[in-house]
Amino acid sequence: MRKKTVADLAIFGGPRLFASSRPIGQLDAPPVADYLELLRVPFEARYLANDGPLVRRLEVALCEYHQVRNCVAVANAGLGLTMLMQLFARGRQGEVIMPAFSYRGLPHFAQWAGQIPRFCDVDPITHGLDPATVEGCITDQTTSILVVCNFNSPGPLDRLCKLGEKHSVPVFLDSVYGLGSSYKRQLLGGFARAEVYSTHATKLLNGFEGGYITTNDDDLAAVLRWQRNFSLPAQRPSGADEWGPVLGLNAKLNELHAAMALLSLQRLDGVIERNKARYNAYSAAIARIDGLTLLPYIDDATERRNYQMAVLDVGARWPFTRDQTLTLLKAEGAAISPYYSPPLHKTLNSTESISVPELPVSEDLATRFIQLPVGELMSLDDVAEIGAFLSFMQEHHADISARLRAIKHG
Amino acid sequence: MRKKTVADLAIFGGPRLFASSRPIGQLDAPPVADYLELLRVPFEARYLANDGPLVRRLEVALCEYHQVRNCVAVANAGLGLTMLMQLFARGRQGEVIMPAFSYRGLPHFAQWAGQIPRFCDVDPITHGLDPATVEGCITDQTTSILVVCNFNSPGPLDRLCKLGEKHSVPVFLDSVYGLGSSYKRQLLGGFARAEVYSTHATKLLNGFEGGYITTNDDDLAAVLRWQRNFSLPAQRPSGADEWGPVLGLNAKLNELHAAMALLSLQRLDGVIERNKARYNAYSAAIARIDGLTLLPYIDDATERRNYQMAVLDVGARWPFTRDQTLTLLKAEGAAISPYYSPPLHKTLNSTESISVPELPVSEDLATRFIQLPVGELMSLDDVAEIGAFLSFMQEHHADISARLRAIKHG
Repeated sequence: MRKKTVADLAIFGGPRLFASSRPIGQLDAPPVADYLELLRVPFEARYLANDGPLVRRLEVALCEYHQVRNCVAVANAGLGLTMLMQLFARGRQGEVIMPAFSYRGLPHFAQWAGQIPRFCDVDPITHGLDPATVEGCITDQTTSILVVCNFNSPGPLDRLCKLGEKHSVPVFLDSVYGLGSSYKRQLLGGFARAEVYSTHATKLLNGFEGGYITTNDDDLAAVLRWQRNFSLPAQRPSGADEWGPVLGLNAKLNELHAAMALLSLQRLDGVIERNKARYNAYSAAIARIDGLTLLPYIDDATERRNYQMAVLDVGARWPFTRDQTLTLLKAEGAAISPYYSPPLHKTLNSTESISVPELPVSEDLATRFIQLPVGELMSLDDVAEIGAFLSFMQEHHADISARLRAIKHG
Repeated sequence: MRKKTVADLAIFGGPRLFASSRPIGQLDAPPVADYLELLRVPFEARYLANDGPLVRRLEVALCEYHQVRNCVAVANAGLGLTMLMQLFARGRQGEVIMPAFSYRGLPHFAQWAGQIPRFCDVDPITHGLDPATVEGCITDQTTSILVVCNFNSPGPLDRLCKLGEKHSVPVFLDSVYGLGSSYKRQLLGGFARAEVYSTHATKLLNGFEGGYITTNDDDLAAVLRWQRNFSLPAQRPSGADEWGPVLGLNAKLNELHAAMALLSLQRLDGVIERNKARYNAYSAAIARIDGLTLLPYIDDATERRNYQMAVLDVGARWPFTRDQTLTLLKAEGAAISPYYSPPLHKTLNSTESISVPELPVSEDLATRFIQLPVGELMSLDDVAEIGAFLSFMQEHHADISARLRAIKHG
């Protein structure tokens, strides 16, 4: 319910702006009937789990979408990243260079792969790895460089890949938030040594759960297919020797997920269109508010972007802290979170043998951003309500701040 | 088609005994309509992936079935085993003791967990770890002992657990083939520190894919729940500190799998009954054939067994080798394989720093066994056909052997 007085704020006991929570996930859903129909095939054939016909169809469709030679479906993106870190290390225990301002799971994936994460500072605009900071992190211990393509920009891929070549270190991409984005007018999918995507329900392409790896390297693809199904000795591909020990695991995608992702892929352009409308609505609302900025999609006049995320930059002139703003919005039923905060090098579960450098850009960025509610459960009216709520916060900031202090000290 | 002359054998160009392949997996399938109905709930609620209501229902139902305090559903059994190996090591790089005669994925799971597999010889009757051989493998490097409960017997669990206590080494069970089996008249599920089960479609309980961990240790269960969802800092359970570094990953089960496993669990007793009828039919057919034995379910007069597997022991008096027998049966449309052959210590992808001892029992067992076709796609008539085929092989062994030699040298 829209606020008339400060007492109407949910944090002060008023009714929530959103009776049912508004998420930060895409949560696209094809018609249930279409899904159930597609499921009958594997269900009735009792061919459900291992590299089935729908998984193969999905892999072909994704190769076509990304214009890439190979797509290897996996159980989830995290396992895909872990597999690549293990392969690229070729049996060594070394370091994986990764951005400090990124997704919380990455350091653990490196450790599962027997590697130590080497956190690297990021570019203040793209929020991704910067060739200058990366070069300072490369040592003879480096086994690979994980470039994360953020929602706003894939980053300087050519320069990062050249840097890897110069030092003979494989570069690969976490493209989970880059799906549908382009670099130099070519859709992501075939860049670097490999790219990893997610098909979790909260992502752009919804397979309920799951992920896939794209690569133009046929040998790498063959080894990944072997690895995802336990690296069974009888199925060893011819080129496996050059990869060193290939630790197998169960990282197979199954038919249930492939069916959903196939349907969702057909809807991708529509999803991105709706995302853009929501993003533009946010943009218009927030442009009117002093001290707040909606992070832009970089180069979006010339490059394709997916408009999946709406990330608020809480500036110094805004009369609340980032965390106060977050708390007030959450109380209203926005299931939101700070964006990549704290940075990875400040939140290690294990600090043993992992160095914790000073990374000023990552540390600054991590104090500023909020992921706003997005996706198919957010209407344009909902977006307008959030805009109005933020305006209300600004207008009544003195009163709200006083009441917040009273709660804190009361 | 049943054989009349030796020329009718598929390997010599005759029509196959089974036009469509007969598998070695359980492949039980609840009515498709029941499954699709159950799926509507999460699908329409758009609550598909993370610790959803059906996953919780499944965990409760499995606690009840196994009479155990905690069940933690995971994406697959391999990840469950890997998580436990990582936790029990408490940050050390050490050794996991495991049977050399077992499932091919185990050594890699240990390596993902930063551990070295320590292969141990097995008991010639239960085919599992034997306290005498295990004790010789325990060193100050040992971080855990993985006991595999085979289809025929869980093994001497009390003695193995006591051995672990004596040396302060956690003992846990791979109970994938022990589902529905009992030890000292108590159903498996609550033994040792934890047990791991699979719900892959080929297993007794069919969730398409998936697995779960059972344990009576509430703290361990809380840590596992945290670990399977990336060990996110904000969700850290109170007892986490004592576990050392808990490497997180995406090992969540989702609603699609939970729905199927819930339906399959209701059918479990019926599945085991049908398995027993198939096993008894095999037993009757093979008892008449000199040189072949069907491996027995140990103590099945007093203990519960699941009768899931039919494993043929090819003896010295049988006029063909194990591998010839396998080849002839496969040609007829039996999608079978040798049972745990070669043993694990003979098939390492990476031998670096992993010792390869002489393990005579494992090496002998690995030359002898064939998994026969089982599961819901095998009728009792099919079983009789395999019996008749083996009798035919024996009756015409001289002629068949001569023709096989001719093919080999032709």
